[in-house]
Amino acid sequence: MIRPDPRGLGPGAVLGILGGGQLARMLALAAADLGLRVHIFAPDPDSPAYEVAARHTIGAYEDEAALAAFADAVDVVTYEFENVPAATAAFLAARTPLHPGARALAVTQDRLTEKRFVAELGLAVAPFHPVDSLSDLEQAVAALGRPAVLKTRRFGYDGKGQVKITEGTDLALAWEEIGHFPAILEGFVTFSREVSVVAARAPDGAFAAFDVCENEHRDHILALTQVPARIGSAAAEGAIEAARRIGEALSYVGVFAVEFFVVGDKTGEQAIVNEIAPRVHNSGHWTSEGAETSQFHQHVRAVCGFPLGASARRGRVTMQNLIGEQVQDWRAILAEPGAHLHLYGKRDARPGRKMGHVTRVTREGD
Amino acid sequence: MIRPDPRGLGPGAVLGILGGGQLARMLALAAADLGLRVHIFAPDPDSPAYEVAARHTIGAYEDEAALAAFADAVDVVTYEFENVPAATAAFLAARTPLHPGARALAVTQDRLTEKRFVAELGLAVAPFHPVDSLSDLEQAVAALGRPAVLKTRRFGYDGKGQVKITEGTDLALAWEEIGHFPAILEGFVTFSREVSVVAARAPDGAFAAFDVCENEHRDHILALTQVPARIGSAAAEGAIEAARRIGEALSYVGVFAVEFFVVGDKTGEQAIVNEIAPRVHNSGHWTSEGAETSQFHQHVRAVCGFPLGASARRGRVTMQNLIGEQVQDWRAILAEPGAHLHLYGKRDARPGRKMGHVTRVTREGD
Repeated sequence: MIRPDPRGLGPGAVLGILGGGQLARMLALAAADLGLRVHIFAPDPDSPAYEVAARHTIGAYEDEAALAAFADAVDVVTYEFENVPAATAAFLAARTPLHPGARALAVTQDRLTEKRFVAELGLAVAPFHPVDSLSDLEQAVAALGRPAVLKTRRFGYDGKGQVKITEGTDLALAWEEIGHFPAILEGFVTFSREVSVVAARAPDGAFAAFDVCENEHRDHILALTQVPARIGSAAAEGAIEAARRIGEALSYVGVFAVEFFVVGDKTGEQAIVNEIAPRVHNSGHWTSEGAETSQFHQHVRAVCGFPLGASARRGRVTMQNLIGEQVQDWRAILAEPGAHLHLYGKRDARPGRKMGHVTRVTREGD
Repeated sequence: MIRPDPRGLGPGAVLGILGGGQLARMLALAAADLGLRVHIFAPDPDSPAYEVAARHTIGAYEDEAALAAFADAVDVVTYEFENVPAATAAFLAARTPLHPGARALAVTQDRLTEKRFVAELGLAVAPFHPVDSLSDLEQAVAALGRPAVLKTRRFGYDGKGQVKITEGTDLALAWEEIGHFPAILEGFVTFSREVSVVAARAPDGAFAAFDVCENEHRDHILALTQVPARIGSAAAEGAIEAARRIGEALSYVGVFAVEFFVVGDKTGEQAIVNEIAPRVHNSGHWTSEGAETSQFHQHVRAVCGFPLGASARRGRVTMQNLIGEQVQDWRAILAEPGAHLHLYGKRDARPGRKMGHVTRVTREGD
């Protein structure tokens, strides 16, 4: 057999992944490249990740019998999405190593907890105000002004669970629209760019960040990433340092992403923390061809206790998401020299659905 | 759904692969990256490729019922090894597209047929003589001299089925050792290097070769590949042109490798065809990080009728096989910046067994 390292697992170990979407699929491909076996646990009977995994369990995240059997069958568990129920995480963590840990989930599942966590680290964050009632909302809007954004504290993604508050917005209607759920009002930030840092932290505290990348969203969905981001080196270093401190404070193990708003002009440019994602991230897809180690390999290395890989960039990189019908261009993309197509094995190209992505790398100096 | 191209298959198609070893495993990973589903057919109940494939069938290559069901379940069939029985290939080809085709198998499964095929193309090949009896062997040795190598015509690999004929060799014993099987005597070639060309040919005749690479064998097993090969441009161009003509003459579809001996000095350097492999090849593993498109992606593109990818090299590349216990160095390799480890998911590190490989890329000019 291949001998494991006394400090961790070895090739041949079984990596359990909660969730069966494209992130789990790409994690499974990277894990296979490192000789690991993968076991996917997901509720959907038809998940893209099943097709590249040695085993899969179709089960609800609340099914303790299924979770216990899964925990017994794997050597370490990770996940592809931040909304893993806390009870599921606790149940698994009692039986097998879970990386990233329960604290990373607890902090990032709740926008208010997350903002407070970031603010307490002394990092710049957009002004925010908790909203648990219509009168809270009225006070919050009075304090932060308009425009502002009302967001549910939990389980929002890709622009869902958000209402923009502008001059004409009726606050009672907005509160209605958000479903009277515990919420947070975020002051509007006039930013020049959105950037993110995708980074990894190992169990021994080693930290490796990929270069800061710049993200362009359309309809609240990431459309395009370019690296390097068009920001100054001070702001870039500040963003990476913020990510390092966030990872440290969470005792984080694995890859995570921190999204930032870039504000101010060249002389006072600053990156303000917007959101933390405790997982591999769409804005890190460029690393597959654009960096020495992909974010997927890096995450597998980190959660297994293997040494982190080099995060150096290989050139100027763009990553374009293929959303819905955009995937129909697959043949033209395959015919384009230097374009790298990645498809997720999803059958239906529904509007707004992430079907794949394409990376393009240009060597600097070319 | 993702629309297929009228000229071929589309993402979502099912790629069938005969054989379940590391080549099939790496083909399956590449196919998944392109959104395809993979179905492996192999006799071994415990094959590394099963763990990354959507489906697998454990069956003998002679099991026509199992082959018929497999053919029905896939859109195109390829294979990871050249010793696919002719009857299996014919059976499948009658039911579903088979790439590379039956002729590529027929030519490359028999060393004598292969040598004659190469010689008839007017390409340089080592002197050879058919041997079907001890008296044939005596005549062959008289004609080609010693040293020479006696090889079975069929089913040899990694140095098996070979006997070296030197000054003291008793020919009757050598003929005994080769099992009285139909054989071929190959004249000894004094070569300076062994190189290979890994190339792809598409159904429309498009041809894309990776750069010529140089191979170092130990105990008849590939130990190290380096690219570019240390040969002159005329010999390199000659080798690529030979590969192009071989692909053309076979109406080949997919990736193949041609191994050459390099003979002569700088003024008269020449690449002599040694062997053709109708499949992805160990000497092409460097392409995973070392070329714009890996040989595995390229093969999948070719057999599915997708456009071929760019074959440009990304720098100076070495590929080191991890044989047997060498795989125990996995952690040190993971800790080495710029080293890319690939493991095959095999459990037992038996002597002589290919367990994985590592590529290292240095940008030219660095």
